[in-house]
Amino acid sequence: MIRVLGIDPGTRVTGYGVVDYRDRGLSYVCGGLIRPPQKRVLSKRLYILSEELSNIIEEYRPTCMAVEGLYLALNARSAMMLGHARGVVLMNAGRFGLEVFEYSPSTVKQSITGYGRAPKEQVRGMVKRLLKSDVIDGLDVTDALAVAICHIHHLTYSGKPRPASPGSSFPL
Amino acid sequence: MIRVLGIDPGTRVTGYGVVDYRDRGLSYVCGGLIRPPQKRVLSKRLYILSEELSNIIEEYRPTCMAVEGLYLALNARSAMMLGHARGVVLMNAGRFGLEVFEYSPSTVKQSITGYGRAPKEQVRGMVKRLLKSDVIDGLDVTDALAVAICHIHHLTYSGKPRPASPGSSFPL
Repeated sequence: MIRVLGIDPGTRVTGYGVVDYRDRGLSYVCGGLIRPPQKRVLSKRLYILSEELSNIIEEYRPTCMAVEGLYLALNARSAMMLGHARGVVLMNAGRFGLEVFEYSPSTVKQSITGYGRAPKEQVRGMVKRLLKSDVIDGLDVTDALAVAICHIHHLTYSGKPRPASPGSSFPL
Repeated sequence: MIRVLGIDPGTRVTGYGVVDYRDRGLSYVCGGLIRPPQKRVLSKRLYILSEELSNIIEEYRPTCMAVEGLYLALNARSAMMLGHARGVVLMNAGRFGLEVFEYSPSTVKQSITGYGRAPKEQVRGMVKRLLKSDVIDGLDVTDALAVAICHIHHLTYSGKPRPASPGSSFPL
């Protein structure tokens, strides 16, 4: 059994989704949003993100983590702000010994819909079909679940997981 | 007594320096470099950074943290990589309830040497003079000590500390 924790880090909201792969089938385990209160200072928000994420890891015990990578279109300030949240997410992977796998947004879309530039609605629809779940309707955790599914696809179908190594563009 | 932990976050090496202000005088407490092994994956390096930094905070019990800010000249990738380390640093400030103060590189140089574009050697020389310490020779922890001193100057002389607030450019 593979249990993947997909993470969609953000400066305000970080989405997470846990997907199991067992007996050649996908199943939705949980998904949600971590939203530290905006009125708190950044250092406290990052601490809240870290605490909530570590609680999720301890509760669901994923076997690895998948995150989106390569946000080269961002400006320096946005990239740094997103980097703050990503750094806290990755640190928790290191803390719990979870291997991290990174996929570009187009790789995720390609993996889910067969088309690297698919619109978000199409990705969302396919994620729901693949997981046979309507419980993910209320929250937009599509991106987090999609990157988790993408990793399972790469691991099980193409045989080409992308382990994060010091030589990759964003070594994780 | 004010005890400031100055931090110079970096993707490979993070410098730290602790400076006391007591009886209207500055004194050097400690300084060093956190260098997680380059051969480890990023998530593990960030975890090592977090652990070493939290040990330093627990040992020296600073009353606040000062970091450099505004790295707008970086490209997106460099900004995100630096953001990873900064995020882990700031998260630890949040964890230990340390208020964070941010100063631009030119503000730090201005505060230390009187000139916002002073070369690094001049800043280093002034930091050593201000702290009356030669023990900082071996390691390049000048930037970390300089931002700590800058914060003390702002706090004690100009009466204009820059508390990080949700409205500032980089709310900390």
